[in-house]
Amino acid sequence: MINEHYRRMLEGRSVIRAISERATARRAEIGERNVFDFSLGNPSVPTTPGFTEAMLDLYEHEPAVKLHSYSPSIGLPEFREAVAHSLNRRFGMDYTANHIYPTSGATAALAHAFRAVTAPGSEIITFAPFFPEYKPYSEAAGLKLTVLPCNPDDFQIDFDALEQAMNANVQAVLINTPNNPSGVVYSAATLKRLGELLEAKQRYYGHSIFLISDEPYREITFDGIEQPYPSKFYANTLSCYSFSKSLSLPGERIGYVAVNPAADESDIFIPLFTQISRATGHNCPSSSIQRACARVIDQTADLAVYERNMDLLYTALHELGFEVVRPGGTFYIFPKALEDDAVAFCEKAMDYDLFMVPGDSFGMPGYVRLAYCLDTSKVEAAIPVLKRFVTEQYMQ
Amino acid sequence: MINEHYRRMLEGRSVIRAISERATARRAEIGERNVFDFSLGNPSVPTTPGFTEAMLDLYEHEPAVKLHSYSPSIGLPEFREAVAHSLNRRFGMDYTANHIYPTSGATAALAHAFRAVTAPGSEIITFAPFFPEYKPYSEAAGLKLTVLPCNPDDFQIDFDALEQAMNANVQAVLINTPNNPSGVVYSAATLKRLGELLEAKQRYYGHSIFLISDEPYREITFDGIEQPYPSKFYANTLSCYSFSKSLSLPGERIGYVAVNPAADESDIFIPLFTQISRATGHNCPSSSIQRACARVIDQTADLAVYERNMDLLYTALHELGFEVVRPGGTFYIFPKALEDDAVAFCEKAMDYDLFMVPGDSFGMPGYVRLAYCLDTSKVEAAIPVLKRFVTEQYMQ
Repeated sequence: MINEHYRRMLEGRSVIRAISERATARRAEIGERNVFDFSLGNPSVPTTPGFTEAMLDLYEHEPAVKLHSYSPSIGLPEFREAVAHSLNRRFGMDYTANHIYPTSGATAALAHAFRAVTAPGSEIITFAPFFPEYKPYSEAAGLKLTVLPCNPDDFQIDFDALEQAMNANVQAVLINTPNNPSGVVYSAATLKRLGELLEAKQRYYGHSIFLISDEPYREITFDGIEQPYPSKFYANTLSCYSFSKSLSLPGERIGYVAVNPAADESDIFIPLFTQISRATGHNCPSSSIQRACARVIDQTADLAVYERNMDLLYTALHELGFEVVRPGGTFYIFPKALEDDAVAFCEKAMDYDLFMVPGDSFGMPGYVRLAYCLDTSKVEAAIPVLKRFVTEQYMQ
Repeated sequence: MINEHYRRMLEGRSVIRAISERATARRAEIGERNVFDFSLGNPSVPTTPGFTEAMLDLYEHEPAVKLHSYSPSIGLPEFREAVAHSLNRRFGMDYTANHIYPTSGATAALAHAFRAVTAPGSEIITFAPFFPEYKPYSEAAGLKLTVLPCNPDDFQIDFDALEQAMNANVQAVLINTPNNPSGVVYSAATLKRLGELLEAKQRYYGHSIFLISDEPYREITFDGIEQPYPSKFYANTLSCYSFSKSLSLPGERIGYVAVNPAADESDIFIPLFTQISRATGHNCPSSSIQRACARVIDQTADLAVYERNMDLLYTALHELGFEVVRPGGTFYIFPKALEDDAVAFCEKAMDYDLFMVPGDSFGMPGYVRLAYCLDTSKVEAAIPVLKRFVTEQYMQ
């Protein structure tokens, strides 16, 4: 018989997807150029030519049996080594291949990280605003997800709230920096303080507390600032990554978990992940794509468009009187709506064919998310429409 | 803290993998040509040139943003349509794209099928000999896996055993034809009787009972006989497939679940599968590989080597006095060992550098599995060694 648990999940439709579908329907009615769709976080730039060249080379020159054979259940050595070396070079870590587990994107990376360091019934803490899928991911692992407020003036962690919320049942803290939807980049000061707080709590409660760091936007940062590497600040860290954004490969579904070598029992994680894969039905990402990624491990797509778009939107929103924090990275911006009810605000914007997502889904009602992974010309064209919308609806 | 459930799973090592590792170690000692490794089911033939050409064409000519963009969570329409049309043409079904869900290989297909039609605590029935991973897959979905004996003279289903085992808690029956490890192809008569039995049990118990059909070897059949399509014989069937074997793409991890359009609530399955994916952290297979597979949907690698190898091994085993059923498909053969203890039999064989897997892992102690996805020259070279082993150990 049909499983009732999953049947009930069908009722909780994704708001983001629903708005995106309305934008798509509207495009069919009035044409692409008249619709300003800021709903979806789908990378808008092509992958690096190096990736395409690597795939062509592999398909032209590698013997097919070798290229497409089963990778070991822990992934291909060359991929795992390339990731380890790259993270070591960039962030001064000391990973080996034995700390890297390839996954089908960040979703699978998080599914493995959650299950490795928690048990059903434990609590996991994250911070608003947060990626809405953290809820079903936590529920599926049997976890209680506690969402704490951030400092709304800069979206950094509210440490008083964290201090108060910690209890013996908290097994993991989940962060996402650069953050979807706020665009905040956690500073070294934030990460240092977080690491110190978790160290103290580990000692106090007498058990490990893991930091699960979701980092798909790691390479998209602005104003010349880089994302400090969270694992550098706290030994018990699992870094979850996807190449979807940095290499503009969202459909290819490749990512990894990197286990800090200084973590408790760090050597057990890769074997443990293979058992989690057996349980969830996960498979290693495609062998050929693992190999191509290994060859271009330090490359990215040309990500400069996101900073140009951020600048345009931030300036426009600021001038229009929005309360808005300048994003440090990602391709999102998260201003406060011009009325308390962000759902109503977004509904009114849709009358102008402006599609944004209310912050309610991200755990911050009253805010709205704009995804600006778009051609800059589209952002430029949207700004006068945004001005008209704000003027007509909120300034008269 | 480290999850104790997965930690305990680490103790249950795969016997197949352990034997394969011994073979690998031995190769390093005495050289590839002196080791006869029948342990692993890793396809030995290259993929069809059509697949390579399709990938090269996509990477050369498709715009990268389009090629690598997120596929919808239900998969790419062109892949789902290609699968539906192909199954309709070949088996007289009437699938549409809305009955096809792309998965990362058969493992993920089974993970989705299990969770869709059972609830934790239900019972699922399968038949020995069976693929050992069915155990952890069932346990992870919270199911009780009941393994029934087959008819040992032909490996078809023992219907008396099935009739007796059915009870109100059985939500699904799991079959694997062509079968790993026996090589049996369930006949139309077997599938018809199975369908009738399940129909009757559905009426008797007043609820749906689903047939989950694991079919990665569907295209590898011998003696001019084709595998009758199980879903044709029973409406409540979920067909789980992987292109690993037919297209020799095991490392690319692409497969699907096909939902019989006549199944109860057949329209709910694809949305339900997306919820299961959210819960397990599953992602659609790679977009580019979905597209290439769609283009070569009716092609296979050159699979004739498996039949040649089967013929050689079957004849040799038969002549050496083994009780052995001639496989109808796959690249496995499953003779009875020459002593009651198949583990001891395989240990002795390893002294001759012959690597086989005892049937104990497959739920049939006393038998052994030989995987002959090897060059025919390797099988030919192994036969005199097999003869020497049998003569010296069991005929003196």
